[in-house]
This record gives sequence, C-alpha cells and structure tokens, in this order.
Amino acid sequence: MPSATRFLHITEPLSMKKGGHLASFTLAYETWGELNPDRSNAVLILSGLSPNAHAASSKVDPSPGWWETMIGPGAPIDTDRYHVIALNSLGSCKGSTGPASVNPETGKPYRLDFPDLCVEDIANSAHMLITHLGIEQLCTMVGPSMGGMSALSYLQQNPNSARHFLTISSSSNAAPFSIAIRSLQRELIVSDRAWNEGNYDEKNWPVKGMRMARKLGMLSYRSSEEWRTRFGRRKQDYFPTELFGMNFEVESYLEAAARRFVRSFDPCSYLYLSRAMDWFDVSDGYPDLPHALAEINLKTACVIGVETDILFPAYQQKEIADALRSNGIDTSFTNLESLMGHDAFLVDDALFNPHVAAYFDRIWFEDKL
Amino acid sequence: MPSATRFLHITEPLSMKKGGHLASFTLAYETWGELNPDRSNAVLILSGLSPNAHAASSKVDPSPGWWETMIGPGAPIDTDRYHVIALNSLGSCKGSTGPASVNPETGKPYRLDFPDLCVEDIANSAHMLITHLGIEQLCTMVGPSMGGMSALSYLQQNPNSARHFLTISSSSNAAPFSIAIRSLQRELIVSDRAWNEGNYDEKNWPVKGMRMARKLGMLSYRSSEEWRTRFGRRKQDYFPTELFGMNFEVESYLEAAARRFVRSFDPCSYLYLSRAMDWFDVSDGYPDLPHALAEINLKTACVIGVETDILFPAYQQKEIADALRSNGIDTSFTNLESLMGHDAFLVDDALFNPHVAAYFDRIWFEDKL
Repeated sequence: MPSATRFLHITEPLSMKKGGHLASFTLAYETWGELNPDRSNAVLILSGLSPNAHAASSKVDPSPGWWETMIGPGAPIDTDRYHVIALNSLGSCKGSTGPASVNPETGKPYRLDFPDLCVEDIANSAHMLITHLGIEQLCTMVGPSMGGMSALSYLQQNPNSARHFLTISSSSNAAPFSIAIRSLQRELIVSDRAWNEGNYDEKNWPVKGMRMARKLGMLSYRSSEEWRTRFGRRKQDYFPTELFGMNFEVESYLEAAARRFVRSFDPCSYLYLSRAMDWFDVSDGYPDLPHALAEINLKTACVIGVETDILFPAYQQKEIADALRSNGIDTSFTNLESLMGHDAFLVDDALFNPHVAAYFDRIWFEDKL
Repeated sequence: MPSATRFLHITEPLSMKKGGHLASFTLAYETWGELNPDRSNAVLILSGLSPNAHAASSKVDPSPGWWETMIGPGAPIDTDRYHVIALNSLGSCKGSTGPASVNPETGKPYRLDFPDLCVEDIANSAHMLITHLGIEQLCTMVGPSMGGMSALSYLQQNPNSARHFLTISSSSNAAPFSIAIRSLQRELIVSDRAWNEGNYDEKNWPVKGMRMARKLGMLSYRSSEEWRTRFGRRKQDYFPTELFGMNFEVESYLEAAARRFVRSFDPCSYLYLSRAMDWFDVSDGYPDLPHALAEINLKTACVIGVETDILFPAYQQKEIADALRSNGIDTSFTNLESLMGHDAFLVDDALFNPHVAAYFDRIWFEDKL
C-alpha cells in the first residue's frame, strides 16, 4: 500500500512536562497543497485520540482519510489555497513515537518505560515539527477533540504561532464526567489478565479489555437519539448468541466495530493518551481560563460544538469561546444541533462542513485585508 | 434490624412469557397509610432495577427508604390520604423471588435455571399481589424507571386496573443506546472469571465485573454538567494510587460507590433484570404505541422526564404522553430541566417533588368529582 505519510526524526531531546525525556523521537505527518513562497498559508491539524496522519486522500495515497470530505481541492479546508499538515500525536502508535515504539536504549518497546505523557508534550512536539518545516506562523490551527486540547496548549506555549484558530468539540480541560468514562476504559484494559502489567504480546493481547473499552468509547461518541433512528430495536444474530447479549443490531454493530479496533491500536498508547487528556487543564497555574489564554494573539477564532456531545459537552465549547472573546479575540461560536454527538465532526458532513467552509472563507477574506 | 417488609407466598404457578414457570414464588412489599373501607385509595409503586420494597420509613422501620421524601404523611404521595404499596420486583434479590432464590425443586439457588424473565412477568406478578390484597382498582399506578415499564405492561394486561398513572423517567421500550449500555454492563459481569457461568459463591464473587458494571451504570444515571459542579477537577487519592487511574475525586467517588454495590446485589439478578428491560417493548404485536395502549382506561395520566436523562431520554417520555393523549386520556407531560439525569427522581427532591405533589393533588380533586 502506498503511503503519503512522512516521518520527521528529531534527534534533539524532548523534555516531558512531568519529568523524563525522549532522547530522540519521530513524528508522522501528511501534507496536502503547496506551501506558498512566504510560508504563510499553512494549516495544522492536531488530531484526536485514535486517528493517524492520513486525514485525506492524495495522489500518492488515494485511500480515503479520516477527514476525507473536509480536506481537498475546493473542500472546506481548501488545498488549492492552503498547505495542510495533519500530525499523528506523540504517544500514538500510528507512526509517531509512543509507548509502542522501540526504546533506542533497550531495543524493546517502551511500554511502561515511556515517560508520563501530557497534552503539553504533544503540543510541544507539534511545534517542533512546524519549526522544522520552516513555518514561523501558521495561518490556522485546527483542533478537533483531543486535538483542540493540544492546539490550546500549543497556542498558550507559543502565543504568536497562528493567525486563526478553529477548535471543534474539544475543551480547555477534561470534564469530570469525561474523566469518569476514560478512567473506566483504562480500568477495563488493565483488568484484562492479558494486560499483564504491560507485558502483553501478539499472542497474549488484552482483547477483552480493549474490546469493552472501545464499546464504552463508542457509547460516549454518539447520542441516544441518533441510535434510535439508526438501529431502532431491530434484532440481529450476526454473532453467535451469547448468554445475556447479542440480541439486537446495536449490539452486533458495537461488537463488530470493537473487534476491528482491538488490534489496530496499542493498549499502552491508548492508556497514555487517555490519561493525558484527563490530566489536561490549560488553566493550571492561572486564576481562570481567560488569564490562561491571555497572551495568545489571534486575528479570529471559531469554536464549534455539538449539543448532543456528552464527552466534550456544549458548556465546554462556550467556556473557550467566552474566554477568547473576553481577551478581545474576534470569536464565532456555534452549537450544532446534530444528533451525532462527539463524532459529528467525523460523520455529520452535511451539517459540519458548511460551518468549517464558512470560517475558512472568512479567514481567506481577513488575511487579504 | 426491624423490617416492615411483608412477604406474600403465592403457591399458584406463574407462567413466564418466554416459557417455563415458577411453581411458587414470593413477593416482598411494604405498605404505608390505611386502605380505606371501599379499597379505592391504593397507590402501587413499581420500582427500578435495584431498589428494595423499603421506599420510605415507618414506625416499624424508621430507617430512610429510597424515596423517603416522596412518601409519608403530608408528602407528595400522602399516606394520610393513600394506602401506598411498594413492591420489590420479581427477579430481584431483595426479598422477592429471583435467580438468587432457592429453587424448591433442587434446594439450591436457581441461578441460570431461573426461567427467562420479562417485564411482562414482573407486571403479572404485581397484579397477583394486588388481587391478593383484595384491591380491584388502584387509585394510582406509579412507575419510575424500570417500574414505569412494568406499570405500562400491567395496565396493558389489565386495562381497568387503575384510575390514574404516573410514569417517571421510563419508556415504552428500551432505546438502542440504553440497550448498548446494559449489554456492555452484562458483558462486564460475564467476562469476570469469577462469574464462572453463574457458579460464583461468596468467596469467588465477580467483584471486578460487578464493580465496573456499576460504574458504567452510574455514568448513565447522571449528567456531565452535574458532575462539573459536584466534583470539578478536584484531586483525591483516597484509594491507593493505581496505574492509569484514581487521580481525581470523581474516580474515588465512583470506586467507593461501586464497591458498596458489588456484594449488595446478586449478579444473576442483575443480568436477568437488565436483559428484561432490553427485551421490553409494550408495542410488540401492535402497529404502534397508541394501539398498544388503546385498551387502557385511565381518568388521568402524568408523564415526567428529565432533559439530561441519557438512559430513558426525553423523547421516550414524550412518546408515552403522546400515545396516551391520542387515546383521549387527559395527560400532563413535564420535561424537567434538572442536571441530575436519570437519577433526578431519587435525588433532585426540590425540583421533582412539587410536580408529583401537584399531580396527586389533582388526583385527589378528580376522584372527589
């Protein structure tokens, strides 16, 4: 399979927020569209928990990306206008260095020897990529979900690093309800005997724990009303009938989707990234959110959330918008009436894409002024 | 400990909806207030998944019940006016016969030998209790949560059995999102090695599975916004710090609450009742909900739901109210703006109780006409 993913190997050490460091590390990213001569048209997309760097198709890799309809020629994030960069997060297992990567000091995967990971470290590594690419200021920083946390931290640490900022279904810190969901997911994984304190292997993989954690995740990504219209109460016996389960189509759907996920994501990566989100609070050390974001220079910002999102709920979107506005940043805020919950930005193209297109049209106009 | 719980031993066999039967069985219930001479002032409360029959304190048992502020002299369900009966569901492990009860044929607990349990069976057994008590027609049937499902089935099977009907945070069938949550809870329990196909005992108890299932339940009972105000991001190391967990107060809260639950409820009872809810659809065999409820005679009905309930969501409350209204039943419908989610009827007294009081005042007035 041809891949458009590029790898930047950084040999300068990365000091981690909670102590420890990576002597060297790799970042996986993809790009679309040309960087203009004055390097002013770059759009950086910082991604959520599970996506890789392949956000959209290209000539090199025509397979659809995870944000296929959002990025491309004439798409809301228009690659005829912008040089778009999508980064796989530090800590992930999709090309960038993470707990599943080989520790150069031991020749074995890091696993639990990987230093504690924070969103601030992800942001820091992303900034090193952008610096390496010779981009002094991004046109736009884009952060959906966990990517929005990384973006806020990036902007806080580098207040003049972008002219525009689009945050989608994200938050300035992890809500206690979201912490509870992710905490239970982690408990599910480490309760699997095959987890074995991180000493799992291909043959002994925490399949049950990962499968159930993924199901819980999927529960938190959608809404009750969406599943009513999608599945209703249709019966389906796709999987061999198990005691106390698998009578309904919704159960088969979750089982199939969770099975696909189980071996596609490293359990340690999952645990590290999940915990990093819980720890994150951009206001740590500041009296409040407006003060935490006070240094950030932006021409405009756009905050989009979804009414039915229970993981990054609407009130958290409003908090970001209010804080940016109180700092004098021209900020638009939209609370979409999608039924798709947290996943809306990935699946509700019809509703989401026009809002992103409108913001990027505005950016184009503002930057011409 | 003194108990006010009474036990009715029924020796006539109960045929179960999905086949099989109970040769004899016991129902545990409590009562408050006097039954009037013409036996017309009875209020039956059918309960949710986990409550016992002790809904409120009394002289015999002064310990607070699970609906303590709702039932009593001068309370919204006023025991100076009404003879209130609270029933522990068939299938439960709190006094009524269920999978944890001793099978008279073997002298051992039923466990998986208990016949498949449906909400219709719970309703049927409740009707046998009321008949035994010599009550021909209830003044009011009250059903919160699963109890509302039982109540709908009771009324469907016995269309003239009550004059008034109060359903709270319930539904006419299980929503696919709720099925998914309960299905995952059941998977958590049966994935615990100690579950051992139902052959657990006091020493080998599915502690992990029950603990995690309870946590998932608690996640579905509340709302993100409530936990924001309640816990925020306060740190707490109440439990020994475990890898990847237990940094936040919300995590300690869930752990403590789940530990309390683990041995207080029988795993088999939990599985049977949980599955009964998923199976339930009062419209099975009818073209739609209005037709399913068409035979039911009521003077009035009251439907109360909560905007933030993700387990029995607001749209399901509206479905019941619309169906009753379309059948010409004088029905009030309230969608409360509580942050307490599905648990609001148990914990948000200030908001909930006045609505129940108003409905019972109306009932009092209607019945005098």
